[in-house]
Amino acid sequence: MGRDERGVTPQSEDFSAWYNELVAKAQLVDRGPAKGTMVIRPYGYRLWELLQGELDQRIKDTGHQNAYFPLLIPESYLQREAQHVEGFSPELAVVTHAGGKELEEPLVVRPTSETIIGEMMAKWVSSHRDLPLLLNQWANVVRWELRPRMFLRTTEFLWQEGHTAHADEADAMRETMLALDLYTEVARDIAALPVVPGEKTAGERFAGAVRTFTIEGMMRDGKALQAGTSHYMGTNFASAFEIQYTSEAGRLELCHTTSWGMSTRMIGGVIMTHGDDKGLVLPPRLAPYQVVIVPIGRGDQPVVAARELAGRLKAAGVRAHVDDRAHLSPGYRFNDWELRGVPVRLELGPRDLESGTVVMAKRLGDEGKQSIPLDSVADIMPGVLDDFQDFLLRRAVGFRDAHTRAADTWESFADAVTTGWASALHCGDAACEDDIKTETAATPRCVPLDGAAESGDCVRCGQPAAYGKRVLFGRSY
Amino acid sequence: MGRDERGVTPQSEDFSAWYNELVAKAQLVDRGPAKGTMVIRPYGYRLWELLQGELDQRIKDTGHQNAYFPLLIPESYLQREAQHVEGFSPELAVVTHAGGKELEEPLVVRPTSETIIGEMMAKWVSSHRDLPLLLNQWANVVRWELRPRMFLRTTEFLWQEGHTAHADEADAMRETMLALDLYTEVARDIAALPVVPGEKTAGERFAGAVRTFTIEGMMRDGKALQAGTSHYMGTNFASAFEIQYTSEAGRLELCHTTSWGMSTRMIGGVIMTHGDDKGLVLPPRLAPYQVVIVPIGRGDQPVVAARELAGRLKAAGVRAHVDDRAHLSPGYRFNDWELRGVPVRLELGPRDLESGTVVMAKRLGDEGKQSIPLDSVADIMPGVLDDFQDFLLRRAVGFRDAHTRAADTWESFADAVTTGWASALHCGDAACEDDIKTETAATPRCVPLDGAAESGDCVRCGQPAAYGKRVLFGRSY
Repeated sequence: MGRDERGVTPQSEDFSAWYNELVAKAQLVDRGPAKGTMVIRPYGYRLWELLQGELDQRIKDTGHQNAYFPLLIPESYLQREAQHVEGFSPELAVVTHAGGKELEEPLVVRPTSETIIGEMMAKWVSSHRDLPLLLNQWANVVRWELRPRMFLRTTEFLWQEGHTAHADEADAMRETMLALDLYTEVARDIAALPVVPGEKTAGERFAGAVRTFTIEGMMRDGKALQAGTSHYMGTNFASAFEIQYTSEAGRLELCHTTSWGMSTRMIGGVIMTHGDDKGLVLPPRLAPYQVVIVPIGRGDQPVVAARELAGRLKAAGVRAHVDDRAHLSPGYRFNDWELRGVPVRLELGPRDLESGTVVMAKRLGDEGKQSIPLDSVADIMPGVLDDFQDFLLRRAVGFRDAHTRAADTWESFADAVTTGWASALHCGDAACEDDIKTETAATPRCVPLDGAAESGDCVRCGQPAAYGKRVLFGRSY
Repeated sequence: MGRDERGVTPQSEDFSAWYNELVAKAQLVDRGPAKGTMVIRPYGYRLWELLQGELDQRIKDTGHQNAYFPLLIPESYLQREAQHVEGFSPELAVVTHAGGKELEEPLVVRPTSETIIGEMMAKWVSSHRDLPLLLNQWANVVRWELRPRMFLRTTEFLWQEGHTAHADEADAMRETMLALDLYTEVARDIAALPVVPGEKTAGERFAGAVRTFTIEGMMRDGKALQAGTSHYMGTNFASAFEIQYTSEAGRLELCHTTSWGMSTRMIGGVIMTHGDDKGLVLPPRLAPYQVVIVPIGRGDQPVVAARELAGRLKAAGVRAHVDDRAHLSPGYRFNDWELRGVPVRLELGPRDLESGTVVMAKRLGDEGKQSIPLDSVADIMPGVLDDFQDFLLRRAVGFRDAHTRAADTWESFADAVTTGWASALHCGDAACEDDIKTETAATPRCVPLDGAAESGDCVRCGQPAAYGKRVLFGRSY
């Protein structure tokens, strides 16, 4: 661990060390014993639960139903879709023995569930009346990671995976874009991440998909994080698993399917979008504790008053916590909650109680400490937290825009991707993408949905540009 | 599948066939491809989500925090606690290959998480100030099943597992009983299962526990279902994983730990406690749909009125659903929702609309159909559902009591366990337990907590009775 016992390495010195130290010291995660696994500690898991709640509500409100499919999938299922098995084979964990015997057919621990859900959909769908079939699953998945990093790439992670079947391409594409919209909304409104929704180029598509869409967020080191993806599968999985229906006209037709997922990776995105050298900065809508009250000084009075105040804050819908660890100094506790990213700290000492006030310190912003009337705290706090949430989003938009450059020359492009993103015209050729990656480590993150129509020549090779608009390039996690 | 396409085999004819047909026809589950696995379909998963919500809230309200631990556990971890590895070895699924290579040490898919959580607790606990440590995890676990049955014994199931560490036996035992109380309350108040809380005899203890407590429910075939367990581990796991703390007096002490779990098995208990020959009967507090409205007759009017009514019911906090499948006859739809156990059905046809009434039919009870004013439906429905919930619990208590006999002779005992439970004095000897099992297939379900003090001789062997009170015996799932 870096520096002294409590601090973390500054971002500017070593962003990666800053991240690794912070996730451990803020008690979000710990390493698991098996390679690349993580233990999600209560503070980290609460973040996930809050994100889950927001996303789950939106998934249900748009007509999807949750279900649960088995963890263990016969190896032969994956082989039915050629691109799918090719993409996932290197990452599989395989159960070969169970119940004290060697299995006749090995079972893979699900890396994703298209195949087993496809098999079940084929049983459940027979008529056009059964469509659309709109399913979602909250689950753990396992993908063997050679270069694990907590939350971002772990051997096991938690996610939701939506899987839907439709009568035709138009309906399936509407669904694909609906899921992308949900992700964009949750990222922006809950996590304060101003992600860019767009389409992946052919080389970055999901194994087995016809079209892959993504939301890309910019981290404070200028890199991109893919924070959620939504795939239109065409009839690829429907063919492989015989997901068919009888149309109103009485014809047997293949379904068009989609899948879409958002995972615990999002928590890594929150950390790297908002965090600073003092530690985490949590958006109020995801913060396990939105307000921490630190009672100061001897005697019971400050603790009693702090608890009473916490009760009034909770009644006002605020997640408040009293840090009554009397064996730790106030300064230690202040630093601890700064490290852990609590949006608002309230300090309550004997003198504050005498004057009927409390000292408020926000985790970020220029106002410093403020003394406010104790009686008004519960009334003003929801507004204070909303303002803080808005502030984080505006700040992240500002950072992203300041580190994104429209690059029309190769020099400008190569320079842009050392500190952020380049928005450039590209020929769409895979070999040219590879060439750019070799030269700069940057890859096409997406073709933004809202990009303006533009034609011209590829920023790298000079061939005519594809896509009819600019592509966003950046280094990525 | 039994009988005609829609009905199920009567309980009295073949209880097991009734159950297997019902879980499939009511669309709760489907078989998964790997041996003994189940797919939980949306209707079954919603039941689980509602149960989960109730239990999770109580777990949090009593000071526990959710966390998440890895699925894959090094095989050597299990070997550190001798009884634990002996108990679980035959049921393990083992990952031997991952990332395209054979692993140096095989990883077991967690059958339960005492070992990996013990390892982490040892890292997190150092001072008496870190205690008690109150953790809970919602997760999937895998135990290889030779005789699988949907919900009751499946190779993979979903559950919560509480794991806590304490300074001493007294605190750990308080926790063990607190968890048992939560389970008793959720079973009784939410699932309408009048379970009997009690302690397991030595032969029925969890592998590695010092004391095991259980809640036992009576199914409608007279068998017992263990519906939740809570274990006091003493210092067994603390020794194996070195979970130690420095006391206030400065001495290094071992922690005392507990674990407790409730699983998707509870859904099987709900089905077998309340169901009848027409299908499921769901307690309102767990029913995905508490009220189904079936619009009848041509034209849009009934459907429009049904949707409007559903809106008012939802506003009153009732989970209401409109079955507008116009291509199916009203009779088919009535039967379908009876099979799926919806507590209250409302029928809404043109004549009802003219007279401003709606026909209400409850899933159980003697009142038959009632015509009630459309305007009053939303007002009375919460009360109707509460009454139905109470009715199910009273009915289950009556059934259990009518099928439980205080048996003071072997003849009476042997007869009692053919149709239900026997309450009898027992010597506590393992060989005598085995003898009873061989003769009658009955096992000691528990020593009920609230049993009256009683002494005397063993109902089987005539030796002096142990436990100081009667033991409940029954055949079980």
